[in-house]
Amino acid sequence: MNDEFDVAAAVDAIFDFSMQVMRIVAPMVPAVKINIAFFEKYLWEGLETYYSLISEADGLGLEVIGDVKRGDIGHTAELYAAAHLENPELAGLEDTLAPDAITINGYMGADGIEPFVATATRQGKGVFVLIRTSNPSAGEIQDFADAAGQTLYEKMAEVVGRVANKPDQLGTSGYSNVGMVVGGTSPEVTTNLRRKYDKVWFLVPGYGSQGATAQDCVRFCKPDGTGALINASRSIIYAYEIPRYKEQFGDDWRRCIEQAVVDAKMDLANAMQILI
Amino acid sequence: MNDEFDVAAAVDAIFDFSMQVMRIVAPMVPAVKINIAFFEKYLWEGLETYYSLISEADGLGLEVIGDVKRGDIGHTAELYAAAHLENPELAGLEDTLAPDAITINGYMGADGIEPFVATATRQGKGVFVLIRTSNPSAGEIQDFADAAGQTLYEKMAEVVGRVANKPDQLGTSGYSNVGMVVGGTSPEVTTNLRRKYDKVWFLVPGYGSQGATAQDCVRFCKPDGTGALINASRSIIYAYEIPRYKEQFGDDWRRCIEQAVVDAKMDLANAMQILI
Repeated sequence: MNDEFDVAAAVDAIFDFSMQVMRIVAPMVPAVKINIAFFEKYLWEGLETYYSLISEADGLGLEVIGDVKRGDIGHTAELYAAAHLENPELAGLEDTLAPDAITINGYMGADGIEPFVATATRQGKGVFVLIRTSNPSAGEIQDFADAAGQTLYEKMAEVVGRVANKPDQLGTSGYSNVGMVVGGTSPEVTTNLRRKYDKVWFLVPGYGSQGATAQDCVRFCKPDGTGALINASRSIIYAYEIPRYKEQFGDDWRRCIEQAVVDAKMDLANAMQILI
Repeated sequence: MNDEFDVAAAVDAIFDFSMQVMRIVAPMVPAVKINIAFFEKYLWEGLETYYSLISEADGLGLEVIGDVKRGDIGHTAELYAAAHLENPELAGLEDTLAPDAITINGYMGADGIEPFVATATRQGKGVFVLIRTSNPSAGEIQDFADAAGQTLYEKMAEVVGRVANKPDQLGTSGYSNVGMVVGGTSPEVTTNLRRKYDKVWFLVPGYGSQGATAQDCVRFCKPDGTGALINASRSIIYAYEIPRYKEQFGDDWRRCIEQAVVDAKMDLANAMQILI
């Protein structure tokens, strides 16, 4: 045990770093996705820091996606939804903000999705359900296919699409508050999902460090550029480890991050040409 | 907002009630499953209470299963595993105990299971992966079947079974530290899973309130009575709402709970006769 470095110091350091990153990116991006696991590691101290960052992000004008990947059914799902989508009213927590949207896991079927959607809708918020992730072993489960060739992730998209298209879920924007998490995959798959679920926002992880290219990602957008939130995490946060930024900006890690955002936006904007 | 009832009062009430329940059941059961969602609803205050209860349960000689249903990949999965399976060493948290085992969600494939298993093994702990849940809509996803008739939950069991049977996972007890969550289902399915995964503990929800009978549940045991943890939650905790206990014990809710445990054990013991 290192007595010089206690849990309070750890969460303070994480809070400070995250704040600096958010202040740099806030003028250039619409939303941040905060991965709760990095905070949960520090138990309740970390969780308090997580909620503090949500308030700070809100103050910076950012939409906040809580990457929590919760999944359960019935009353338990309602409790998770309360924790992660409702701004608490209980005295002692009343200044706390919950995220604008969260990620959820639908392995338990519609019963495990609908309670989250009901809470999100009541709160004017959203959910993104895991459909097809981009990790190496994802296919073993998610590409499992029936006799007609339909894969599990297509089946999951069907279940989610059915919930997403209910009238209560459709806002004036033409989009549902129920979205889908789909990693970079083959162009045919992307085009097919985009066409089939035209009311759905896609949350697209994997741009940057995880190997998805800008062209892979922008295929989730409609020709007007809406319809997909393309997420870059490590390639922005740890930009100071990337040789071309290190060479250019040396120890100025803030400038590395700023330039990485500018470059990512330019890369995505250029790739958008394929949609037109 | 109710100023008389703040978050501190809420979590104190939950802690006190849970402690009383655990003191009653501790002499009669081997383990408690604590559903983290009930605590997460009260954000960091609730999470601190959750970990306090784990320490108290440990002090009462109970094994603790953290029903957290986490699921993610790679480094994120490692962070969740640290939060939920490692007894923290960081100053300020060093008196905290993590559960002896947790539930996890394997939708992301082996990449999402192995980091949890690695941590559990290092810590001498266990994980239970969701295979087939017993909620009404579970079948839509989990019974999705390929051309050969294999269902998704059987596929998930195959992936989990492969991990469970690695030499590092097998203790001297003859059981793996990687188990499966399977709700009450048809006798054929249960018998088939029990035979196929003979090194695996099954965590069986749904006994009591959710409609699974003792006979449904004990089929997950081997003839010697080992191999399954049969879970009753609402039928024990809320036994004071059950007419036959209310009639017998009136307002003495502790006696209702005690009798519900005695009755459940008798019911399961009687059902065990089918195994012999």
